[in-house]
Amino acid sequence: MNIGQLTTPALVVQRALLDRNLATMAAALPGARMRPHVKAHKCSALAARQAGMGHTGFTCATITEMERLAGSGLGEDLLLANEVVDATRLGALVRAGARVTMAVDSDEIIAAAVAAGVPEVLIDVNVGLPRCGCRPEEAGRLAERARRQGLSVRGVMGYEGHIVGLEERSRRVELLEESMTLLQGAHEDVGGDVISAGGTGTYDINHWATEIQAGSYALMDTAYGKLGLPFSQALSVLATVISVSSEWAVADCGLKSLGMDHGNPTVDEATVLFCSDEHLTFVPRRRVRVGDRISVIPAHVDPTVAYHEYLHVADGEEVVDHWPVDMRGW
Amino acid sequence: MNIGQLTTPALVVQRALLDRNLATMAAALPGARMRPHVKAHKCSALAARQAGMGHTGFTCATITEMERLAGSGLGEDLLLANEVVDATRLGALVRAGARVTMAVDSDEIIAAAVAAGVPEVLIDVNVGLPRCGCRPEEAGRLAERARRQGLSVRGVMGYEGHIVGLEERSRRVELLEESMTLLQGAHEDVGGDVISAGGTGTYDINHWATEIQAGSYALMDTAYGKLGLPFSQALSVLATVISVSSEWAVADCGLKSLGMDHGNPTVDEATVLFCSDEHLTFVPRRRVRVGDRISVIPAHVDPTVAYHEYLHVADGEEVVDHWPVDMRGW
Repeated sequence: MNIGQLTTPALVVQRALLDRNLATMAAALPGARMRPHVKAHKCSALAARQAGMGHTGFTCATITEMERLAGSGLGEDLLLANEVVDATRLGALVRAGARVTMAVDSDEIIAAAVAAGVPEVLIDVNVGLPRCGCRPEEAGRLAERARRQGLSVRGVMGYEGHIVGLEERSRRVELLEESMTLLQGAHEDVGGDVISAGGTGTYDINHWATEIQAGSYALMDTAYGKLGLPFSQALSVLATVISVSSEWAVADCGLKSLGMDHGNPTVDEATVLFCSDEHLTFVPRRRVRVGDRISVIPAHVDPTVAYHEYLHVADGEEVVDHWPVDMRGW
Repeated sequence: MNIGQLTTPALVVQRALLDRNLATMAAALPGARMRPHVKAHKCSALAARQAGMGHTGFTCATITEMERLAGSGLGEDLLLANEVVDATRLGALVRAGARVTMAVDSDEIIAAAVAAGVPEVLIDVNVGLPRCGCRPEEAGRLAERARRQGLSVRGVMGYEGHIVGLEERSRRVELLEESMTLLQGAHEDVGGDVISAGGTGTYDINHWATEIQAGSYALMDTAYGKLGLPFSQALSVLATVISVSSEWAVADCGLKSLGMDHGNPTVDEATVLFCSDEHLTFVPRRRVRVGDRISVIPAHVDPTVAYHEYLHVADGEEVVDHWPVDMRGW
């Protein structure tokens, strides 16, 4: 099958670029030094490819992601790097044989882990991003409480989400030291083998973490593309030109096939004007005709992938596989 | 079932508010004066409720929406208000007994209708939004071409998408006249019974159109909420508070459960700081605790609904139905 035969809009992954991204990361952070975050692709077939590169522990943001990985035989060491109030379904995964660790940042979430029968936790520490995570000085008390309730505390987690996207590398390095000093301090109070942190933007500068939770590096997007990282844009949304006027052209992808929180997508040799639900209006710098196919590069990969049912895997123009985006929903 | 038992994030529709919105619209634009646009809800059960109010013709943005409506017995008069280069699947719908009309704005799209065996078209006219639609002065020529090729031209379509969202009513009225004068001129050249236009923001001021293509009025969002229309916010994303610090709280809905092109969602008695993939960080003005449920009102309904598998229909706190969002994908 040729990519020209795909119904558009369609997510297309260039296999060679994906594999190169995976290989680059595996060389930098081999084996358990890297715990791929699957929220960026939500695709168990892609996760299996990451496992094939030697990373057999995974990071998840939702219980559904945990379930799908376990159901695909990838349940060797699953971390839910997020708080959940009802962990019942995680307990079922444990009883079915998966290794499940969950992030906890409060007495309530510790209680949820205990109630559900999730045996292992990381203390989630706030390292500067206004989101989840306890205050660093609270981490020791929470670890003690968790252990008293029979949980095994594997260590700490602290996501520097306010730093990973900064374009200037020196600024990332500088702020990272502050964040990771907080995490290191918390780890001294908590104990355990694991310091889990990091993302695609800090994978090569975060030397404090024992494991890096990067996700976007596999497929990439234009936001991370600005950072000068050694990862290529492997993903695009294939769209069809459906209307051409003297001043602009319109393709059939829009707000329902692209995550828009980071702004407009990018089209080669064109200026993107705006997106509607099922349209992208752009000003091409070369002649385009109704029926032409264009590649649209999303600004943010994670919420883009979550709109689609398949990742179509291509070798140049040839479609070689269709991978279900099987970790969607909650 | 109580809404407290729903797995979050979850789309919740208050049935009484939805029904009131539908009744308000049906009173203003009865029967065929209104052709509900299903892109705003992508739910055939909700479309059936609109048909029950007397609107038996529907507007669609994708071929999948057309197929699902026809498959649900709602194929009496379906308009694809969008250009498609490959109309093969629409031809199959026609042969299965649905009435199918498609928008055409170029020779190529006319050829697509002919090739697929779609018998009826509307000439799509650009009335000011930089998107699809021919120049008004081209409409007559396209109609003639379509008729020469055996198509039945039912009339014209012209969506004033640049006007429907303007907050000031007098400004909408003023610009609408300009747009609809263009459409009326095109209609004189084209002929046919149909002048299809309009949206939720112009449903009561567009007196040029023979039918209005409104969609958002059924569920509403905060963008349309600013216009002072007689429709209530019937839809929210139910989320669970998973983390509380001294300065902010975090709930479990984010970029993958909310369309973000119109900006952040709204939470009652709170200031929303930002969304991450699966998180909403907000500053509550009342005390919240881990495990509390909150209602999050999306800024843009269409791309929000498209992330979800179900609309959970509630009567107050009681969940009375689960409607599949069955028109997703392409």
